Amino acid sequence: MINKIVLIGAGNVSTHFGKAFMNAGKKVMQVFSRTERSARELAGKLNCPYTTSLENLLPGADLYMIAVTDSAIDEISKNISLDNPLVAHTSGSTDIKVLENKNIRPAVFYPLQTFSKDTEVNFNEVPLFLEAVNNKDHEKLKNLAGSISSKVYSIDSKQRVMLHIAAVFASNFTNHMLYIADDLLKKNKMSFDILQPLITETVKKAGLIGPFKAQTGPAVRNDKYILELHSDILSAFGDYRKFYNFITNSIISKHCKKREG
Amino acid sequence: MINKIVLIGAGNVSTHFGKAFMNAGKKVMQVFSRTERSARELAGKLNCPYTTSLENLLPGADLYMIAVTDSAIDEISKNISLDNPLVAHTSGSTDIKVLENKNIRPAVFYPLQTFSKDTEVNFNEVPLFLEAVNNKDHEKLKNLAGSISSKVYSIDSKQRVMLHIAAVFASNFTNHMLYIADDLLKKNKMSFDILQPLITETVKKAGLIGPFKAQTGPAVRNDKYILELHSDILSAFGDYRKFYNFITNSIISKHCKKREG
Repeated sequence: MINKIVLIGAGNVSTHFGKAFMNAGKKVMQVFSRTERSARELAGKLNCPYTTSLENLLPGADLYMIAVTDSAIDEISKNISLDNPLVAHTSGSTDIKVLENKNIRPAVFYPLQTFSKDTEVNFNEVPLFLEAVNNKDHEKLKNLAGSISSKVYSIDSKQRVMLHIAAVFASNFTNHMLYIADDLLKKNKMSFDILQPLITETVKKAGLIGPFKAQTGPAVRNDKYILELHSDILSAFGDYRKFYNFITNSIISKHCKKREG
Repeated sequence: MINKIVLIGAGNVSTHFGKAFMNAGKKVMQVFSRTERSARELAGKLNCPYTTSLENLLPGADLYMIAVTDSAIDEISKNISLDNPLVAHTSGSTDIKVLENKNIRPAVFYPLQTFSKDTEVNFNEVPLFLEAVNNKDHEKLKNLAGSISSKVYSIDSKQRVMLHIAAVFASNFTNHMLYIADDLLKKNKMSFDILQPLITETVKKAGLIGPFKAQTGPAVRNDKYILELHSDILSAFGDYRKFYNFITNSIISKHCKKREG
Protein backbone atom coordinates (compact mmCIF):
# COMPACT_ATOMS: atom_id res chain seq x y z
CA MET A 1 0.00 0.00 0.00
CA ILE A 2 1.26 3.44 -0.93
CA ASN A 3 0.69 6.01 1.81
CA LYS A 4 3.80 8.18 1.96
CA ILE A 5 4.76 10.10 -1.16
CA VAL A 6 7.60 12.45 -2.07
CA LEU A 7 6.87 14.84 -4.95
CA ILE A 8 9.81 15.68 -7.20
CA GLY A 9 8.87 18.80 -9.15
CA ALA A 10 6.54 21.62 -8.13
CA GLY A 11 4.71 22.55 -11.34
CA ASN A 12 1.06 22.10 -12.40
CA VAL A 13 1.08 18.31 -12.47
CA SER A 14 2.80 17.98 -9.10
CA THR A 15 0.46 20.55 -7.56
CA HIS A 16 -2.69 18.82 -8.81
CA PHE A 17 -1.41 15.39 -7.73
CA GLY A 18 -0.35 16.71 -4.34
CA LYS A 19 -3.83 18.05 -3.62
CA ALA A 20 -5.51 14.88 -4.89
CA PHE A 21 -3.28 12.66 -2.70
CA MET A 22 -3.93 14.84 0.33
CA ASN A 23 -7.69 14.69 -0.28
CA ALA A 24 -7.45 10.89 -0.50
CA GLY A 25 -5.79 10.77 2.94
CA LYS A 26 -2.28 10.10 1.68
CA LYS A 27 0.75 11.77 3.22
CA VAL A 28 2.95 13.96 1.05
CA MET A 29 6.22 13.73 2.98
CA GLN A 30 8.27 16.27 1.06
CA VAL A 31 8.42 18.44 -2.05
CA PHE A 32 11.57 18.82 -4.14
CA SER A 33 12.21 21.54 -6.70
CA ARG A 34 15.43 23.17 -7.85
CA THR A 35 13.56 26.48 -7.68
CA GLU A 36 13.23 27.32 -4.00
CA ARG A 37 10.20 29.58 -4.42
CA SER A 38 8.22 26.82 -6.22
CA ALA A 39 9.25 24.21 -3.67
CA ARG A 40 8.28 26.44 -0.73
CA GLU A 41 4.97 27.43 -2.31
CA LEU A 42 3.79 23.88 -3.00
CA ALA A 43 5.10 22.60 0.35
CA GLY A 44 3.06 25.36 1.97
CA LYS A 45 -0.10 24.19 0.23
CA LEU A 46 0.55 20.59 1.21
CA ASN A 47 1.76 21.38 4.69
CA CYS A 48 5.05 19.47 4.39
CA PRO A 49 8.80 20.20 4.27
CA TYR A 50 10.66 20.94 1.03
CA THR A 51 14.17 20.66 -0.34
CA THR A 52 16.06 22.03 -3.33
CA SER A 53 18.72 19.32 -3.23
CA LEU A 54 18.20 15.72 -4.36
CA GLU A 55 20.75 14.59 -1.76
CA ASN A 56 18.30 15.69 0.91
CA LEU A 57 15.35 13.61 -0.31
CA LEU A 58 13.74 11.96 2.71
CA PRO A 59 14.09 8.15 2.76
CA GLY A 60 11.17 5.86 3.55
CA ALA A 61 8.50 7.09 1.14
CA ASP A 62 6.39 4.42 -0.62
CA LEU A 63 6.58 6.39 -3.86
CA TYR A 64 8.86 9.05 -5.33
CA MET A 65 6.91 10.79 -8.07
CA ILE A 66 8.90 12.69 -10.71
CA ALA A 67 6.70 15.36 -12.31
CA VAL A 68 9.20 17.53 -14.17
CA THR A 69 9.89 18.49 -17.77
CA ASP A 70 10.59 15.36 -19.84
CA SER A 71 14.19 16.14 -20.65
CA ALA A 72 15.08 16.36 -16.92
CA ILE A 73 13.70 12.94 -15.90
CA ASP A 74 16.86 11.02 -16.74
CA GLU A 75 19.18 13.36 -14.86
CA ILE A 76 16.95 13.50 -11.78
CA SER A 77 16.33 9.77 -11.54
CA LYS A 78 20.09 9.19 -11.86
CA ASN A 79 20.67 11.31 -8.76
CA ILE A 80 18.24 9.66 -6.40
CA SER A 81 20.59 8.00 -3.93
CA LEU A 82 18.15 5.98 -1.87
CA ASP A 83 17.87 2.23 -1.41
CA ASN A 84 15.90 0.93 -4.44
CA PRO A 85 12.79 3.08 -4.02
CA LEU A 86 9.66 2.95 -6.22
CA VAL A 87 10.03 5.89 -8.64
CA ALA A 88 7.29 6.86 -11.09
CA HIS A 89 7.49 9.59 -13.71
CA THR A 90 4.29 11.27 -14.94
CA SER A 91 5.20 11.89 -18.56
CA GLY A 92 3.11 10.89 -21.57
CA SER A 93 6.02 10.69 -23.97
CA THR A 94 8.91 9.32 -21.94
CA ASP A 95 9.64 5.60 -22.08
CA ILE A 96 9.77 3.74 -18.78
CA LYS A 97 13.25 2.61 -19.90
CA VAL A 98 14.68 5.99 -18.90
CA LEU A 99 14.28 4.84 -15.28
CA GLU A 100 15.92 1.45 -15.78
CA ASN A 101 19.46 0.38 -14.84
CA LYS A 102 19.48 2.66 -11.85
CA ASN A 103 19.08 1.74 -8.20
CA ILE A 104 15.30 2.31 -8.36
CA ARG A 105 12.09 0.38 -9.22
CA PRO A 106 10.77 2.09 -12.40
CA ALA A 107 7.12 3.03 -12.93
CA VAL A 108 4.89 5.47 -14.79
CA PHE A 109 1.85 7.33 -13.47
CA TYR A 110 0.53 9.41 -16.38
CA PRO A 111 -2.51 11.66 -15.93
CA LEU A 112 -4.33 12.48 -19.17
CA GLN A 113 -5.61 15.97 -18.53
CA THR A 114 -4.92 19.61 -19.35
CA PHE A 115 -3.70 21.20 -16.14
CA SER A 116 -3.58 24.96 -15.75
CA LYS A 117 -2.34 26.70 -12.65
CA ASP A 118 -5.52 28.42 -11.56
CA THR A 119 -8.11 25.96 -12.84
CA GLU A 120 -9.49 23.35 -10.47
CA VAL A 121 -9.73 19.80 -11.83
CA ASN A 122 -12.09 17.05 -10.68
CA PHE A 123 -9.43 14.35 -10.29
CA ASN A 124 -11.99 11.57 -10.10
CA GLU A 125 -12.55 12.11 -13.86
CA VAL A 126 -8.85 12.22 -14.80
CA PRO A 127 -7.80 9.00 -16.56
CA LEU A 128 -4.56 7.60 -15.13
CA PHE A 129 -2.28 5.37 -17.21
CA LEU A 130 0.04 3.08 -15.27
CA GLU A 131 3.12 1.08 -16.09
CA ALA A 132 5.56 -0.79 -13.83
CA VAL A 133 8.25 -3.41 -14.29
CA ASN A 134 7.10 -5.72 -11.51
CA ASN A 135 3.57 -6.87 -10.66
CA LYS A 136 3.71 -5.98 -7.00
CA ASP A 137 4.53 -2.37 -7.78
CA HIS A 138 1.85 -2.35 -10.48
CA GLU A 139 -0.78 -3.48 -7.98
CA LYS A 140 0.31 -0.84 -5.48
CA LEU A 141 0.08 1.89 -8.11
CA LYS A 142 -3.36 0.63 -9.18
CA ASN A 143 -4.55 0.99 -5.60
CA LEU A 144 -3.11 4.46 -5.29
CA ALA A 145 -4.60 5.52 -8.66
CA GLY A 146 -7.98 4.07 -7.66
CA SER A 147 -7.96 6.17 -4.50
CA ILE A 148 -7.96 9.42 -6.53
CA SER A 149 -9.60 8.53 -9.87
CA SER A 150 -12.33 6.24 -11.19
CA LYS A 151 -10.51 5.83 -14.53
CA VAL A 152 -7.38 3.70 -14.20
CA TYR A 153 -5.71 1.98 -17.17
CA SER A 154 -2.57 -0.04 -17.82
CA ILE A 155 -0.71 0.61 -21.07
CA ASP A 156 2.87 0.23 -22.21
CA SER A 157 5.30 3.01 -23.17
CA LYS A 158 4.66 2.63 -26.92
CA GLN A 159 0.93 3.07 -26.51
CA ARG A 160 1.43 5.89 -24.05
CA VAL A 161 3.38 8.11 -26.43
CA MET A 162 0.72 7.53 -29.10
CA LEU A 163 -1.93 8.43 -26.54
CA HIS A 164 -0.02 11.61 -25.74
CA ILE A 165 0.16 12.53 -29.44
CA ALA A 166 -3.58 11.82 -29.83
CA ALA A 167 -4.16 14.04 -26.80
CA VAL A 168 -2.16 16.86 -28.40
CA PHE A 169 -4.53 16.70 -31.38
CA ALA A 170 -7.68 16.37 -29.26
CA SER A 171 -6.77 19.02 -26.71
CA ASN A 172 -3.95 21.44 -27.69
CA PHE A 173 -4.78 21.52 -31.41
CA THR A 174 -8.52 21.65 -30.77
CA ASN A 175 -7.91 24.53 -28.39
CA HIS A 176 -5.91 26.29 -31.10
CA MET A 177 -8.88 26.04 -33.47
CA LEU A 178 -11.00 27.64 -30.75
CA TYR A 179 -8.37 30.35 -30.37
CA ILE A 180 -8.51 31.23 -34.07
CA ALA A 181 -12.32 31.25 -33.97
CA ASP A 182 -12.18 33.56 -30.94
CA ASP A 183 -9.67 35.83 -32.68
CA LEU A 184 -11.79 36.09 -35.86
CA LEU A 185 -14.91 36.89 -33.83
CA LYS A 186 -13.16 39.55 -31.74
CA LYS A 187 -11.78 41.21 -34.88
CA ASN A 188 -15.37 41.42 -36.13
CA LYS A 189 -16.97 42.62 -32.89
CA MET A 190 -18.57 39.37 -31.85
CA SER A 191 -18.15 37.32 -28.69
CA PHE A 192 -16.77 33.78 -28.34
CA ASP A 193 -19.84 32.99 -26.22
CA ILE A 194 -22.07 32.72 -29.28
CA LEU A 195 -20.06 29.65 -30.38
CA GLN A 196 -20.56 27.73 -27.14
CA PRO A 197 -23.68 25.74 -28.15
CA LEU A 198 -21.99 24.77 -31.43
CA ILE A 199 -18.79 23.66 -29.68
CA THR A 200 -20.71 21.68 -27.07
CA GLU A 201 -22.75 19.91 -29.75
CA THR A 202 -19.65 19.23 -31.89
CA VAL A 203 -17.84 17.48 -29.06
CA LYS A 204 -20.97 15.63 -27.92
CA LYS A 205 -21.72 14.35 -31.43
CA ALA A 206 -18.12 13.21 -32.01
CA GLY A 207 -18.36 11.20 -28.80
CA LEU A 208 -21.71 9.68 -29.75
CA ILE A 209 -21.26 8.70 -33.40
CA GLY A 210 -17.47 9.09 -33.80
CA PRO A 211 -15.73 12.11 -35.37
CA PHE A 212 -15.54 10.63 -38.87
CA LYS A 213 -19.31 10.26 -39.23
CA ALA A 214 -19.91 13.49 -37.32
CA GLN A 215 -18.08 15.74 -39.78
CA THR A 216 -20.17 18.49 -41.43
CA GLY A 217 -19.39 21.79 -43.18
CA PRO A 218 -18.08 23.03 -46.53
CA ALA A 219 -14.89 20.90 -46.56
CA VAL A 220 -16.54 17.49 -46.18
CA ARG A 221 -19.20 18.53 -48.73
CA ASN A 222 -16.32 19.73 -50.94
CA ASP A 223 -18.41 22.87 -51.47
CA LYS A 224 -15.98 24.77 -53.70
CA TYR A 225 -18.15 27.91 -53.80
CA ILE A 226 -18.00 28.42 -50.02
CA LEU A 227 -14.41 27.17 -49.66
CA GLU A 228 -13.16 29.73 -52.15
CA LEU A 229 -15.24 32.50 -50.61
CA HIS A 230 -13.86 31.77 -47.12
CA SER A 231 -10.33 31.46 -48.41
CA ASP A 232 -10.61 34.83 -50.20
CA ILE A 233 -12.01 36.58 -47.13
CA LEU A 234 -9.26 35.11 -44.94
CA SER A 235 -6.54 36.61 -47.12
CA ALA A 236 -7.13 39.77 -45.05
CA PHE A 237 -6.32 37.84 -41.86
CA GLY A 238 -2.63 36.96 -42.08
CA ASP A 239 -1.82 33.26 -42.20
CA TYR A 240 -5.36 32.11 -41.45
CA ARG A 241 -5.99 31.61 -45.17
CA LYS A 242 -3.13 29.13 -45.41
CA PHE A 243 -4.39 27.49 -42.26
CA TYR A 244 -7.96 27.21 -43.60
CA ASN A 245 -6.81 25.69 -46.88
CA PHE A 246 -4.43 23.26 -45.18
CA ILE A 247 -7.04 21.74 -42.89
CA THR A 248 -9.74 21.86 -45.54
CA ASN A 249 -7.53 19.83 -47.88
CA SER A 250 -6.82 17.34 -45.13
CA ILE A 251 -10.56 16.87 -44.46
CA ILE A 252 -11.28 16.46 -48.17
CA SER A 253 -8.50 13.91 -48.65
CA LYS A 254 -9.42 11.83 -45.58
CA HIS A 255 -13.08 11.70 -46.49
CA CYS A 256 -12.55 11.00 -50.17
CA LYS A 257 -10.14 8.16 -49.40
CA LYS A 258 -12.53 6.58 -46.93
CA ARG A 259 -15.50 6.91 -49.27
CA GLU A 260 -13.61 5.44 -52.18
CA GLY A 261 -12.28 2.69 -49.92
CA MET B 1 -46.84 37.34 -36.88
CA ILE B 2 -45.41 34.41 -38.82
CA ASN B 3 -47.57 31.30 -38.63
CA LYS B 4 -47.58 29.74 -42.08
CA ILE B 5 -44.25 28.65 -43.54
CA VAL B 6 -43.16 27.08 -46.83
CA LEU B 7 -39.87 25.20 -46.72
CA ILE B 8 -37.75 25.36 -49.87
CA GLY B 9 -35.19 22.57 -49.64
CA ALA B 10 -35.50 19.23 -47.88
CA GLY B 11 -32.02 18.64 -46.40
CA ASN B 12 -30.76 18.60 -42.82
CA VAL B 13 -31.38 22.29 -42.09
CA SER B 14 -34.88 22.26 -43.54
CA THR B 15 -35.73 19.06 -41.67
CA HIS B 16 -34.55 20.39 -38.32
CA PHE B 17 -36.34 23.74 -38.85
CA GLY B 18 -39.53 21.99 -39.97
CA LYS B 19 -39.66 19.91 -36.80
CA ALA B 20 -38.87 22.92 -34.60
CA PHE B 21 -41.59 25.04 -36.24
CA MET B 22 -44.11 22.22 -35.88
CA ASN B 23 -43.22 21.79 -32.19
CA ALA B 24 -43.73 25.54 -31.72
CA GLY B 25 -47.27 25.29 -33.14
CA LYS B 26 -46.41 26.83 -36.51
CA LYS B 27 -47.91 25.46 -39.72
CA VAL B 28 -45.55 24.17 -42.42
CA MET B 29 -47.79 24.61 -45.50
CA GLN B 30 -45.61 22.90 -48.08
CA VAL B 31 -42.18 21.45 -48.79
CA PHE B 32 -40.33 22.05 -52.05
CA SER B 33 -37.38 20.04 -53.33
CA ARG B 34 -36.22 19.29 -56.87
CA THR B 35 -35.62 15.73 -55.66
CA GLU B 36 -39.05 14.15 -55.33
CA ARG B 37 -37.98 11.51 -52.81
CA SER B 38 -36.55 14.14 -50.43
CA ALA B 39 -39.62 16.38 -50.80
CA ARG B 40 -41.99 13.47 -50.14
CA GLU B 41 -39.99 12.22 -47.18
CA LEU B 42 -39.86 15.55 -45.36
CA ALA B 43 -43.49 16.38 -46.23
CA GLY B 44 -44.42 13.03 -44.69
CA LYS B 45 -42.62 13.92 -41.47
CA LEU B 46 -44.30 17.33 -41.34
CA ASN B 47 -47.69 16.09 -42.53
CA CYS B 48 -48.02 18.59 -45.38
CA PRO B 49 -48.08 18.59 -49.21
CA TYR B 50 -44.94 18.85 -51.32
CA THR B 51 -43.94 20.02 -54.79
CA THR B 52 -40.91 19.65 -57.04
CA SER B 53 -41.73 22.71 -59.11
CA LEU B 54 -41.24 26.31 -57.96
CA GLU B 55 -44.21 27.36 -60.08
CA ASN B 56 -46.42 25.34 -57.79
CA LEU B 57 -45.34 27.05 -54.55
CA LEU B 58 -48.47 27.75 -52.51
CA PRO B 59 -49.24 31.46 -52.11
CA GLY B 60 -50.20 33.00 -48.77
CA ALA B 61 -47.36 31.81 -46.51
CA ASP B 62 -45.96 34.32 -44.02
CA LEU B 63 -42.44 33.09 -44.75
CA TYR B 64 -40.70 31.21 -47.54
CA MET B 65 -37.54 29.72 -46.12
CA ILE B 66 -34.78 28.77 -48.56
CA ALA B 67 -32.54 26.11 -47.01
CA VAL B 68 -30.53 24.84 -49.97
CA THR B 69 -26.88 24.72 -51.00
CA ASP B 70 -25.51 28.29 -51.19
CA SER B 71 -24.87 28.33 -54.90
CA ALA B 72 -28.55 27.56 -55.62
CA ILE B 73 -30.06 30.40 -53.57
CA ASP B 74 -29.86 33.00 -56.34
CA GLU B 75 -31.48 30.80 -58.97
CA ILE B 76 -34.27 29.65 -56.66
CA SER B 77 -35.14 33.10 -55.33
CA LYS B 78 -35.25 34.40 -58.92
CA ASN B 79 -37.93 31.86 -59.74
CA ILE B 80 -40.36 32.55 -56.91
CA SER B 81 -43.26 34.09 -58.78
CA LEU B 82 -45.44 35.20 -55.89
CA ASP B 83 -46.54 38.68 -54.86
CA ASN B 84 -43.67 40.17 -52.85
CA PRO B 85 -43.40 37.44 -50.18
CA LEU B 86 -41.01 37.41 -47.21
CA VAL B 87 -38.13 35.12 -48.25
CA ALA B 88 -35.32 34.15 -45.87
CA HIS B 89 -32.29 32.08 -46.72
CA THR B 90 -30.51 30.12 -43.98
CA SER B 91 -26.92 30.40 -45.17
CA GLY B 92 -23.99 31.57 -43.06
CA SER B 93 -21.91 32.74 -45.98
CA THR B 94 -24.40 34.19 -48.47
CA ASP B 95 -24.98 37.95 -48.48
CA ILE B 96 -28.58 39.13 -48.08
CA LYS B 97 -27.98 41.06 -51.33
CA VAL B 98 -28.46 37.88 -53.32
CA LEU B 99 -32.17 38.19 -52.55
CA GLU B 100 -32.43 41.86 -53.53
CA ASN B 101 -33.84 43.35 -56.75
CA LYS B 102 -36.37 40.55 -57.04
CA ASN B 103 -40.08 40.68 -56.31
CA ILE B 104 -39.50 39.47 -52.70
CA ARG B 105 -38.74 40.92 -49.23
CA PRO B 106 -35.21 39.66 -48.42
CA ALA B 107 -34.22 38.20 -45.07
CA VAL B 108 -31.76 35.80 -43.44
CA PHE B 109 -32.47 33.19 -40.76
CA TYR B 110 -29.11 31.52 -40.01
CA PRO B 111 -28.89 28.72 -37.43
CA LEU B 112 -25.42 28.22 -35.98
CA GLN B 113 -25.31 24.50 -35.36
CA THR B 114 -23.89 21.27 -36.77
CA PHE B 115 -26.86 19.34 -38.12
CA SER B 116 -26.57 15.66 -38.94
CA LYS B 117 -29.38 13.62 -40.36
CA ASP B 118 -29.91 11.18 -37.52
CA THR B 119 -28.87 13.33 -34.57
CA GLU B 120 -31.56 15.15 -32.60
CA VAL B 121 -30.84 18.78 -31.74
CA ASN B 122 -32.27 20.78 -28.85
CA PHE B 123 -33.35 23.78 -30.90
CA ASN B 124 -33.82 25.94 -27.84
CA GLU B 125 -30.00 26.05 -27.59
CA VAL B 126 -29.37 26.81 -31.28
CA PRO B 127 -28.32 30.46 -31.77
CA LEU B 128 -30.25 32.10 -34.62
CA PHE B 129 -28.80 35.07 -36.52
CA LEU B 130 -31.32 37.31 -38.25
CA GLU B 131 -31.13 39.97 -40.92
CA ALA B 132 -33.89 41.76 -42.84
CA VAL B 133 -34.12 44.88 -44.97
CA ASN B 134 -37.18 46.35 -43.27
CA ASN B 135 -37.93 46.65 -39.56
CA LYS B 136 -41.38 45.11 -39.68
CA ASP B 137 -40.02 41.91 -41.22
CA HIS B 138 -37.14 41.95 -38.75
CA GLU B 139 -39.58 42.07 -35.83
CA LYS B 140 -41.65 39.24 -37.28
CA LEU B 141 -38.55 37.08 -37.70
CA LYS B 142 -37.44 37.87 -34.17
CA ASN B 143 -40.79 36.62 -32.88
CA LEU B 144 -40.58 33.47 -34.94
CA ALA B 145 -36.98 32.85 -33.86
CA GLY B 146 -37.92 33.45 -30.22
CA SER B 147 -40.63 30.79 -30.50
CA ILE B 148 -38.07 28.05 -31.23
CA SER B 149 -34.82 29.29 -29.61
CA SER B 150 -33.71 31.25 -26.56
CA LYS B 151 -30.66 32.62 -28.41
CA VAL B 152 -31.64 35.18 -31.05
CA TYR B 153 -29.17 37.72 -32.49
CA SER B 154 -29.18 40.35 -35.22
CA ILE B 155 -26.01 40.69 -37.31
CA ASP B 156 -25.27 41.92 -40.82
CA SER B 157 -24.02 39.87 -43.76
CA LYS B 158 -20.37 40.85 -43.26
CA GLN B 159 -20.38 39.67 -39.66
CA ARG B 160 -22.33 36.56 -40.57
CA VAL B 161 -19.74 35.22 -43.02
CA MET B 162 -17.01 35.83 -40.44
CA LEU B 163 -19.13 33.99 -37.89
CA HIS B 164 -19.49 31.12 -40.35
CA ILE B 165 -15.73 30.97 -40.87
CA ALA B 166 -15.16 31.06 -37.10
CA ALA B 167 -17.67 28.22 -36.80
CA VAL B 168 -15.76 26.17 -39.39
CA PHE B 169 -12.67 26.48 -37.17
CA ALA B 170 -14.55 25.82 -33.93
CA SER B 171 -16.63 22.92 -35.21
CA ASN B 172 -15.48 21.31 -38.47
CA PHE B 173 -11.75 21.79 -37.87
CA THR B 174 -12.04 20.87 -34.20
CA ASN B 175 -13.89 17.74 -35.24
CA HIS B 176 -11.08 16.93 -37.68
CA MET B 177 -8.56 17.11 -34.82
CA LEU B 178 -10.75 14.64 -32.94
CA TYR B 179 -10.87 12.43 -36.02
CA ILE B 180 -7.08 12.28 -36.23
CA ALA B 181 -6.84 11.55 -32.49
CA ASP B 182 -9.41 8.76 -32.93
CA ASP B 183 -7.51 7.37 -35.92
CA LEU B 184 -4.17 7.34 -34.05
CA LEU B 185 -5.74 5.62 -31.05
CA LYS B 186 -7.46 2.96 -33.18
CA LYS B 187 -4.20 2.22 -34.98
CA ASN B 188 -2.63 1.62 -31.57
CA LYS B 189 -5.45 -0.46 -30.10
CA MET B 190 -6.94 2.19 -27.85
CA SER B 191 -10.43 3.62 -27.70
CA PHE B 192 -11.53 7.21 -28.35
CA ASP B 193 -13.50 7.04 -25.08
CA ILE B 194 -10.35 7.47 -22.99
CA LEU B 195 -9.99 11.00 -24.43
CA GLN B 196 -13.48 12.14 -23.41
CA PRO B 197 -12.59 13.68 -20.02
CA LEU B 198 -9.70 15.56 -21.64
CA ILE B 199 -11.87 16.87 -24.47
CA THR B 200 -14.63 17.92 -22.08
CA GLU B 201 -12.15 19.78 -19.87
CA THR B 202 -10.43 21.42 -22.88
CA VAL B 203 -13.68 22.88 -24.17
CA LYS B 204 -14.87 23.89 -20.71
CA LYS B 205 -11.60 25.66 -19.88
CA ALA B 206 -11.54 27.52 -23.22
CA GLY B 207 -15.03 28.80 -22.44
CA LEU B 208 -14.09 29.84 -18.91
CA ILE B 209 -10.73 31.56 -19.34
CA GLY B 210 -10.58 31.95 -23.14
CA PRO B 211 -8.64 29.66 -25.51
CA PHE B 212 -5.49 31.79 -25.58
CA LYS B 213 -4.89 31.54 -21.84
CA ALA B 214 -6.14 27.95 -21.78
CA GLN B 215 -3.46 26.59 -24.13
CA THR B 216 -1.17 23.88 -22.70
CA GLY B 217 1.06 21.19 -24.17
CA PRO B 218 4.46 20.87 -25.85
CA ALA B 219 3.84 23.50 -28.58
CA VAL B 220 2.98 26.41 -26.27
CA ARG B 221 5.90 25.42 -24.00
CA ASN B 222 8.03 25.22 -27.16
CA ASP B 223 9.29 21.92 -25.76
CA LYS B 224 11.63 20.96 -28.61
CA TYR B 225 12.48 17.58 -27.10
CA ILE B 226 8.85 16.37 -27.15
CA LEU B 227 7.95 18.15 -30.41
CA GLU B 228 10.77 16.38 -32.24
CA LEU B 229 9.93 13.05 -30.67
CA HIS B 230 6.26 13.31 -31.71
CA SER B 231 7.18 14.51 -35.17
CA ASP B 232 9.57 11.55 -35.64
CA ILE B 233 6.99 9.02 -34.47
CA LEU B 234 4.33 10.50 -36.76
CA SER B 235 6.51 9.98 -39.83
CA ALA B 236 5.13 6.43 -39.77
CA PHE B 237 1.57 7.81 -40.04
CA GLY B 238 1.30 9.39 -43.49
CA ASP B 239 0.68 13.11 -43.56
CA TYR B 240 0.06 13.43 -39.83
CA ARG B 241 3.66 14.51 -39.30
CA LYS B 242 3.21 17.47 -41.64
CA PHE B 243 -0.08 18.23 -39.92
CA TYR B 244 1.49 18.10 -36.44
CA ASN B 245 4.33 20.41 -37.45
CA PHE B 246 2.03 22.86 -39.22
CA ILE B 247 -0.28 23.40 -36.25
CA THR B 248 2.58 23.30 -33.75
CA ASN B 249 4.33 26.12 -35.64
CA SER B 250 1.12 28.12 -35.71
CA ILE B 251 0.70 27.76 -31.94
CA ILE B 252 4.31 28.73 -31.32
CA SER B 253 4.09 31.79 -33.59
CA LYS B 254 0.79 33.05 -32.12
CA HIS B 255 1.96 32.68 -28.56
CA CYS B 256 5.41 34.16 -29.15
CA LYS B 257 3.94 37.20 -30.93
CA LYS B 258 1.43 37.85 -28.15
CA ARG B 259 4.03 37.43 -25.44
CA GLU B 260 6.51 39.73 -27.13
CA GLY B 261 3.74 42.26 -27.81
